[in-house]
Amino acid sequence: MPIKAIAFDAYGTLLDVYSVGALAEEFFPGKGADIAVTWRDKQIEYTRLRTMCDRYTDFWQVTGDGLDYACALHGVAPTAQQRAALMGAYEKLTAFDENHAQLTRLKAAGVPMAILSNGTRAMIDSALEAAGLDGLLDHVLSVDTVGKFKTAPEAYQMGPDAFGCDASDILFVSSNCWDICGATWFGYHTIWLNRYGLPMERLGVEPMARGKSLKDVADYALASFSG
Amino acid sequence: MPIKAIAFDAYGTLLDVYSVGALAEEFFPGKGADIAVTWRDKQIEYTRLRTMCDRYTDFWQVTGDGLDYACALHGVAPTAQQRAALMGAYEKLTAFDENHAQLTRLKAAGVPMAILSNGTRAMIDSALEAAGLDGLLDHVLSVDTVGKFKTAPEAYQMGPDAFGCDASDILFVSSNCWDICGATWFGYHTIWLNRYGLPMERLGVEPMARGKSLKDVADYALASFSG
Repeated sequence: MPIKAIAFDAYGTLLDVYSVGALAEEFFPGKGADIAVTWRDKQIEYTRLRTMCDRYTDFWQVTGDGLDYACALHGVAPTAQQRAALMGAYEKLTAFDENHAQLTRLKAAGVPMAILSNGTRAMIDSALEAAGLDGLLDHVLSVDTVGKFKTAPEAYQMGPDAFGCDASDILFVSSNCWDICGATWFGYHTIWLNRYGLPMERLGVEPMARGKSLKDVADYALASFSG
Repeated sequence: MPIKAIAFDAYGTLLDVYSVGALAEEFFPGKGADIAVTWRDKQIEYTRLRTMCDRYTDFWQVTGDGLDYACALHGVAPTAQQRAALMGAYEKLTAFDENHAQLTRLKAAGVPMAILSNGTRAMIDSALEAAGLDGLLDHVLSVDTVGKFKTAPEAYQMGPDAFGCDASDILFVSSNCWDICGATWFGYHTIWLNRYGLPMERLGVEPMARGKSLKDVADYALASFSG
């Protein structure tokens, strides 16, 4: 099946959500990795609970809430300055090294590209700029516009709306398997960027393709691109 | 605020979802607890993803899917017999010791009681019978009737519909803090049975009361019951 465009997830896919663990480790020795994992888990959990119950608040708030829970669970009490520093680190998450080369390669081939993210527009812009990726994308789509987080259909609908084509013409790329399942259910052409060698989620749905790096994704996209 | 009835969550609240860990440990030494935790986490995650994407399948299926993921993640491959045994254990989860005395005490005081659970009717009935709790409840409400899992409003609506009163007249009891947040948002009078001493979820909502045991819950309910 040919594709006409690509929509990338941001957090976990282009941006390393666990890179904040180093700063957390500096503040709370021995607990950095646990805090980073709980922070991410709770952030995601809160997006779902708020979406299911129609209690949307933006991803910046939810990210802060997840951090506060993670600190409480792991028994640490950050100062206001430490909390601000951790949130600041999340605002400028480390991007994966391979991103720039692969996105440049796709742009050179004329593939229209978007980010479709749970993040706020300000968070995404800030992270892209810090990673030197701004200017490579045709659309930056934040679910903040629709007031529902992924995997709500309203969030995924932003892709077809931005590109003016069917979801099945768009390659949706995510390292988050749950995001891939939601996007596949919605109707996208999907590739799971399985960075961490995780098992496939058991949701009765499979992506069209899989890769281990953004290079795998770009290879697949360029072979499928119909111009 | 007086209450007219009680709705209990089942899994985690009356039934010990981690009691399956012992059997998992017997089959896969050193990995039982990890498998039980992942099993529960994925089971809950799948209820939310399926509800957000309108891809409902019943809790028995979702429970099996969660088990399969947990086994894959922790690198074990159960035989068909081991899998059936683990699912069978989930069908007859250990109930908490205090349940019978406290539910009997509430029933003696004339408090109308329901279970409002993500489980199928068959799963709940089987677990209640195994725990000797059948006959103490006025209503057994399974979200299977509405085809959406908690925390969808449609699931919580079953309580007011069954008791014929407002959600604010019903004491909703759960050990799952996310369930308490959803029920509070919905409008129930809520008490969080914090069995494991966990931090409050950061969702901008608080239960009306908290307890550490079902005795705490029954004390609160009897003091609030308006007959």
